[in-house]
Amino acid sequence: MNQEMNTGWGLIGASTIARQYMADAIRAQEGHFVQAVMSSNQERANQFAKDCNIPAAYSSLEAILADPLVKVVYISTTNDLHFEQAIAAAEAGKHVLCEKPLALSIDQAVEMAKACKQAGVLMATNHHLRNAATHRKIKELIQAGAIGKPLFARVFHAVYLPPHLQGWRLDKPQAGGGVILDITVHDVDTLRFTMESEIQEVVALSQSASMAKEGLEDGVMAAIRFENGVLAQIHDAFTVKHGGHGIEYHGEAGSIFGRNVMSQQPVGEVILRNADGEQQIAIEHEGLYVRGVRTFCEALKGNGQPAATAEDGIRSLAGALAVLDASKSGTRQEVRAFTL
Amino acid sequence: MNQEMNTGWGLIGASTIARQYMADAIRAQEGHFVQAVMSSNQERANQFAKDCNIPAAYSSLEAILADPLVKVVYISTTNDLHFEQAIAAAEAGKHVLCEKPLALSIDQAVEMAKACKQAGVLMATNHHLRNAATHRKIKELIQAGAIGKPLFARVFHAVYLPPHLQGWRLDKPQAGGGVILDITVHDVDTLRFTMESEIQEVVALSQSASMAKEGLEDGVMAAIRFENGVLAQIHDAFTVKHGGHGIEYHGEAGSIFGRNVMSQQPVGEVILRNADGEQQIAIEHEGLYVRGVRTFCEALKGNGQPAATAEDGIRSLAGALAVLDASKSGTRQEVRAFTL
Repeated sequence: MNQEMNTGWGLIGASTIARQYMADAIRAQEGHFVQAVMSSNQERANQFAKDCNIPAAYSSLEAILADPLVKVVYISTTNDLHFEQAIAAAEAGKHVLCEKPLALSIDQAVEMAKACKQAGVLMATNHHLRNAATHRKIKELIQAGAIGKPLFARVFHAVYLPPHLQGWRLDKPQAGGGVILDITVHDVDTLRFTMESEIQEVVALSQSASMAKEGLEDGVMAAIRFENGVLAQIHDAFTVKHGGHGIEYHGEAGSIFGRNVMSQQPVGEVILRNADGEQQIAIEHEGLYVRGVRTFCEALKGNGQPAATAEDGIRSLAGALAVLDASKSGTRQEVRAFTL
Repeated sequence: MNQEMNTGWGLIGASTIARQYMADAIRAQEGHFVQAVMSSNQERANQFAKDCNIPAAYSSLEAILADPLVKVVYISTTNDLHFEQAIAAAEAGKHVLCEKPLALSIDQAVEMAKACKQAGVLMATNHHLRNAATHRKIKELIQAGAIGKPLFARVFHAVYLPPHLQGWRLDKPQAGGGVILDITVHDVDTLRFTMESEIQEVVALSQSASMAKEGLEDGVMAAIRFENGVLAQIHDAFTVKHGGHGIEYHGEAGSIFGRNVMSQQPVGEVILRNADGEQQIAIEHEGLYVRGVRTFCEALKGNGQPAATAEDGIRSLAGALAVLDASKSGTRQEVRAFTL
């Protein structure tokens, strides 16, 4: 294979998600390959490259961006690093697929999107849940009127942070730790996607129970009003071992129950209950990250938009930051406006 | 039967709940009988008395309180009337079992309790859910450590207000309408009962969708912090036909799922999931109102307290009013303090 005819990716961050999902998702796309990985620790980069059969391993941003075979970067470092890495990648002419949350502030995220636009490179956000066949089917059902006018949504995303991830998320506020930036941002993105509606206002209470330190929260409950009138409640946590996860939408004429659907895996089921009774909806599952990368690669060829655009990433971050601000201030927060 | 040896009850309000549950619950107690019913409409009182085989029917408060066979009153009129009726009953030397919410303000509810105390009569609140075998079993499980330290609770009480109840609850703010005074007060009471903890602070958003008018809400989502550190979220509505109802408690070591348990009927199931797996807990169901009246009758004999005391009614009303205030103001509310 002549790699110069193909599109090489550089993984910025030797992360669990890059290892478990993204390397394979990239390789599943025709004409795409993983050229390089970067970690601030060269040993870690070498080991990751060896384990995942990646040609090049770097320990600096400059080095991976200087690799001429790297045309696209996937950024999955700690949240505080996304900003400078995305800007540098754009300036080096690389396309950018960035993990959520895009950055620690809306201003930073907007600057990232503007830098990519100015450089003429594609930027997208790696929100996986909107790629799930379950959530896409739920969106279809709602749009087809299966529950009538939607009134309420509920997101249950209180899970247990696995021991191998119990690091900076629990004790590094400066790295963007805490459950709101880690999980709430996904809930917001999923609700925005499914209902095609934006957040109007938010109230929230957070908890710091047994795991989080340094003022970070390991649990949050929020209520969100969307512009379509729907009230949504979310419950996110790092501390709940046996709660399960799911999402529900309740309308004037029916309810949809998504069970085991807030997962990185292509799993879960969708139940519709209305005047016709209760039925399990058929789902054709597909890898969430595979689909996400595919829409990105199609967009590179000029076909459509990535599943979650840069703007989606900014709006979902803005929703999560509104939840964070609401939980800290005790007052109802609107989502901060921005212009791209 | 010599009724003068027995305890006669007067039903103030010819309500659906009096007809469907309370007349039978009173008659299930040895030595207790229903002597009279009162409605502001004499025709309605007569019909109710005839249907339910009650000796006397009155159309004024004075008349029912003047009946010498009436020793206890059960008040289930619209919420704005409880205050004056309870005070008058106390002054007439009648014991008082009052529907929730006790009144429209904490001051009124406190005054009712003080009037009963001063008159030397018993006062209690007719919160049915704490009498359910399901909720009592859940309390037992939590106290026995089945889920470890409790972290979160969720209450799903978004139901459809049946057509025959679609009256003042939807369009009479002055009568204490709205879903918060009707349903949220029950959620608060159930959480207080189960966890034996009081509310610290509340945030909320409310909705007025298709049913409520005159500024009343027909849906609400709230997050509540309890003094034991637990965050609880509630979702109450009059507008949801197919959502079902239930309650959940999530702790560090397990979760409890109460399904179909926010009911007036002795139904529902309790599931415990923890490191030992998932199991359905055996429940010995019993009529909720029957048990509530029984504890009241026992207290009359000097045995223990009613299931929900006057103070419970005030505290649960205070929690609901905090939710109402939070939803209107957009700011975190504490529960207003009071002294009895």
